[in-house]
Amino acid sequence: MGVKRELDLTSADNPRVKAVAKLREHRRRRETGLFVAEGLREVGRARAAGLRVVELYWSPDMLHGAERGEAEALVAAAGDEGAITARVGEALMRKMAYTENPPGLLAVMEQPAWARASLAEAMGLLKMGAEAGKDELWLVAVGIEKPGNLGAMLRTADAAGVTAVLVADAVVDAFNPNAIRASTGAVFTLPVLGATGEEARHMLRGRGVRLLAATPDGATPHTRTDMTGAVALVIGPEDTGLDEAWLKEAAGRVSIPMLGRSTDSLNASVAAAVLLFEARRQRDKGK
Amino acid sequence: MGVKRELDLTSADNPRVKAVAKLREHRRRRETGLFVAEGLREVGRARAAGLRVVELYWSPDMLHGAERGEAEALVAAAGDEGAITARVGEALMRKMAYTENPPGLLAVMEQPAWARASLAEAMGLLKMGAEAGKDELWLVAVGIEKPGNLGAMLRTADAAGVTAVLVADAVVDAFNPNAIRASTGAVFTLPVLGATGEEARHMLRGRGVRLLAATPDGATPHTRTDMTGAVALVIGPEDTGLDEAWLKEAAGRVSIPMLGRSTDSLNASVAAAVLLFEARRQRDKGK
Repeated sequence: MGVKRELDLTSADNPRVKAVAKLREHRRRRETGLFVAEGLREVGRARAAGLRVVELYWSPDMLHGAERGEAEALVAAAGDEGAITARVGEALMRKMAYTENPPGLLAVMEQPAWARASLAEAMGLLKMGAEAGKDELWLVAVGIEKPGNLGAMLRTADAAGVTAVLVADAVVDAFNPNAIRASTGAVFTLPVLGATGEEARHMLRGRGVRLLAATPDGATPHTRTDMTGAVALVIGPEDTGLDEAWLKEAAGRVSIPMLGRSTDSLNASVAAAVLLFEARRQRDKGK
Repeated sequence: MGVKRELDLTSADNPRVKAVAKLREHRRRRETGLFVAEGLREVGRARAAGLRVVELYWSPDMLHGAERGEAEALVAAAGDEGAITARVGEALMRKMAYTENPPGLLAVMEQPAWARASLAEAMGLLKMGAEAGKDELWLVAVGIEKPGNLGAMLRTADAAGVTAVLVADAVVDAFNPNAIRASTGAVFTLPVLGATGEEARHMLRGRGVRLLAATPDGATPHTRTDMTGAVALVIGPEDTGLDEAWLKEAAGRVSIPMLGRSTDSLNASVAAAVLLFEARRQRDKGK
């Protein structure tokens, strides 16, 4: 049991407390390759995905019923695996946690290897060669601004069984606390690769992946667009849409027909869902 | 021009100010059949849908550039149509508005007739007879708790061209400010009918609408389920799923296969989108 390693933190000025709070920043997560998982369920999912706990903090008094026993077991297991574990009071937990009502346990964890690597390195880690596999299905999310939207899109993309997600020109990353939560843990297992638009296009072009640009009502309906083979569905920001560079690069444009009384667009993660599951349907039909 | 009717409110104790703020409550909206639309765009969409402005409040100092001119035109038009219009200062606007950064204009408006009616009356207003039209496509949303989720579902349902939405056993209504916003105005035009689960089942049964219950992975995949004809897709709360009464009533169960690494469910409005657009695809194919 890892009890001998366990610390007892009491001061909010403790450098560890500050370091954890600092991981709320995108830049800090990128520099360190770390992130914060909050709550038994989230930490459990991340560990089940093979991610390493570096530090684990818990407040026994904030945990009730079966939770406390589960937390004790988790603290012991993480300690055995080499993590630093520490009990903290409620006030300190609130300083470290991102959520307003912190669940009484949080962990500093290592991001998956692909998330810490450059695009080229990540492709190597994923064992993706120079040419696209014939059934590859990519989602390319361009210019996403809200972490919750990114997370929702990752949950959907994982459910649809995509090969990987390219997040291009984003100002958010998948390990933002709100993105993790909205993804319901998909970020821990789904390869999510960050890149500039140019890097992303260069890589997909080099591998021979066919790009389909999602555009507002008007292009070929999604149900009449061939989405089999190595395909990347490219979805732009809801307000401005895809820029010219993406539209020029795309082999085709695809639209979801708007059939209602007044609605003229779908939420980006909803649009991704409709397109990805239609791509799945077409692929399964051929088998 | 409606200037002669225009008031100049100055005290937060004014009963009108209190009455507007009170419309944040579900119960108050139900009692009065009114709701609050905030901002030029939202009020404009509601008016375009034929909904009547009862009172219109604006703070000229909070409006800038072209907005101020648009607001003036709107105030004049609403005044001509019989609305009470009033200038208010920023502090008062903040008391009346639901949003943290109010857009400087809001209107008390009448809900559509179907939203103010009982289920039976609403069916009459929508000119829906005793028997279902053969192409009717209903979305039944059961037990929704978050207004934002309801609104997102309504936006999606409208885009998919549903006949109407039944909101069963909900604790929220479609004219909650967050529901309106998430619906991007779909609530103003799309028939959204509230009912208890029992009322909803009784009505659909009586009209011969075939119920398909969305259940987690395991039932017939949605792409292999016949969703043509008069059909209602029934979607339950994300955490607990549909209760026994709905499952017993349903002619069949339908699942969206989960194909990913770790995700075991979709967000309810995303699931609704995937099912509704698959139903659309099947219907269009037959034409």
